[in-house]
Amino acid sequence: MTRADFDVIGIGNAIVDVLSHADDAFLATNGIEKGGMTLIDTARAETLYALMGAGREVSGGSAANTMAGIASLGGRAAYIGKVRDDQLGAVFARDIRASGVRFTTNPATSGAPTARCLILVSPDAQRSMNTFLGACVDLGPEDVDESEIAAAKITYLEGYLWDPPRAKEAFLKAAAAAHRAGRQVSLSLSDAFCVNRYRKEFLDLVTSHIDILFANEAEILALFEAASFEDAVKAVRATGTLTVLTRGAAGATVVGRDGVITVPAASVAKVVDTTGAGDLFAAGFLYWYTNGRSLEDSARIGAIAAAEVISHVGARPEVALAGLLGPKLG
Amino acid sequence: MTRADFDVIGIGNAIVDVLSHADDAFLATNGIEKGGMTLIDTARAETLYALMGAGREVSGGSAANTMAGIASLGGRAAYIGKVRDDQLGAVFARDIRASGVRFTTNPATSGAPTARCLILVSPDAQRSMNTFLGACVDLGPEDVDESEIAAAKITYLEGYLWDPPRAKEAFLKAAAAAHRAGRQVSLSLSDAFCVNRYRKEFLDLVTSHIDILFANEAEILALFEAASFEDAVKAVRATGTLTVLTRGAAGATVVGRDGVITVPAASVAKVVDTTGAGDLFAAGFLYWYTNGRSLEDSARIGAIAAAEVISHVGARPEVALAGLLGPKLG
Repeated sequence: MTRADFDVIGIGNAIVDVLSHADDAFLATNGIEKGGMTLIDTARAETLYALMGAGREVSGGSAANTMAGIASLGGRAAYIGKVRDDQLGAVFARDIRASGVRFTTNPATSGAPTARCLILVSPDAQRSMNTFLGACVDLGPEDVDESEIAAAKITYLEGYLWDPPRAKEAFLKAAAAAHRAGRQVSLSLSDAFCVNRYRKEFLDLVTSHIDILFANEAEILALFEAASFEDAVKAVRATGTLTVLTRGAAGATVVGRDGVITVPAASVAKVVDTTGAGDLFAAGFLYWYTNGRSLEDSARIGAIAAAEVISHVGARPEVALAGLLGPKLG
Repeated sequence: MTRADFDVIGIGNAIVDVLSHADDAFLATNGIEKGGMTLIDTARAETLYALMGAGREVSGGSAANTMAGIASLGGRAAYIGKVRDDQLGAVFARDIRASGVRFTTNPATSGAPTARCLILVSPDAQRSMNTFLGACVDLGPEDVDESEIAAAKITYLEGYLWDPPRAKEAFLKAAAAAHRAGRQVSLSLSDAFCVNRYRKEFLDLVTSHIDILFANEAEILALFEAASFEDAVKAVRATGTLTVLTRGAAGATVVGRDGVITVPAASVAKVVDTTGAGDLFAAGFLYWYTNGRSLEDSARIGAIAAAEVISHVGARPEVALAGLLGPKLG
């Protein structure tokens, strides 16, 4: 195994977020599943886009947010994802490169426009996501450079990749290349609805292909069809996969070979928008973990990164996260 | 004079802002005039866009921000400005309509893309703007519907309209149509550098075509080449034009026919980004003024609207400003 050029390389749906505020009545009237991620088609995207309030466009995408977080912490990150050669694609590419992430995937030159996620933030800071996958459907194994995968300590994959038709081929090619190079593979379950769509395949992945699993409480309950968090933790332990379980204000639980560690959530003056909380927890954890720190310290850095991103609107850090690493943990 | 459908109709450069943070060293290294608005060409826009940090895209444009502010306060506003039929143009059109502003200008179907303003926000909350005018150069008198102008109590024009070649023709057509309908015409001086570019024309406008003038301290000093604020106020009084002068943390001065009124700035917990401060001051003033309130109360509402917009990144309100009008002033 050669020296790694990257701490982590992420593969995911390359998406520009359109963030706006909406109350529960708006969600109900327009049939939007609160707190979840719903895939929408062109017609629904146009209708909803016209109905929702004035907003802001910010680069997003789950694994892309995580890579931007790792770079913001001072880590070395790369990203693979598909945009179209259009204005929003240029926005996405610029933002992720400006964050310090290596991003070289060729944009699609035909087909659907760059993906966007219409995110409605509720007064209680919950976010409801409506994703138009656009150009993401063009991501395929040809976009995975095996030497780039081999150059990263960890290949990080988002469960959402199961939605576009050929992205899972890219996912499996990358996972195999990583393992051949003696590297590790990590998966985020992304969303409980997503887990329900692909439970059998995700269970197979977790027990045979994944070294580090990220999930929140709803996702891990959905994966194992467990009745309680304790039952889900037991099921996780049986797989032998290092698993990081986030529980919002209740903190996080790391299930490792040597036992279970629980860390509290980092304090936040005011929770403004929970978009990106899981993505940034993964960023903090993976940055510290790939730099040889303990599971507990890695989880604490995850909690700090998540706390920053939920204190403002949008799913990427607004300050250099490296500045939040105190002397005690740094 | 018939009943007005709108309190204010604004005409301006329709721009999408790209907001990012940068320190003074970045501004110096890249030759950016701190605190000002610089026009940039395509090549410079591409260079700067690639160099600046990850950001967010938010609809902007000086007069457009003002109209969005008036609608947010509960007023009736319309807007005329030129975007291209591209993705950023769709973002601009959606945002201003979602704000409650009537916007029916046809987008350009050829030529330059939708305008963007690369805004660098300094640690001291100052903003430096680099504007690529794009499709704004296609705005002309054919975009001004005289019946729409006649339906607004005030036609509000931004000084920046002197930059694109044919927009001033649209400006003058609108001003003439407003006066023929017995309405008022208002001008914002926009920027001290802009005033220096067009001083003679602006002086002629202020003395003969404008009923309500908005300017900050630097702009009014530039217009009259005055040595002190007091000298500038004297020069303003000699024109007989109702003038609203904003002075940042020092509050605002209204120069009317009956004398000079000074109101304090509204308090802000933390000034985050001064982008849009003048635009929103004008929004608050014009909304209250067109609804029959006193000059002093109108200036106080201006100060409240400006205080909201400088408390966060971006030049448009993040909360419904109508909710900030207390029972005392409401």
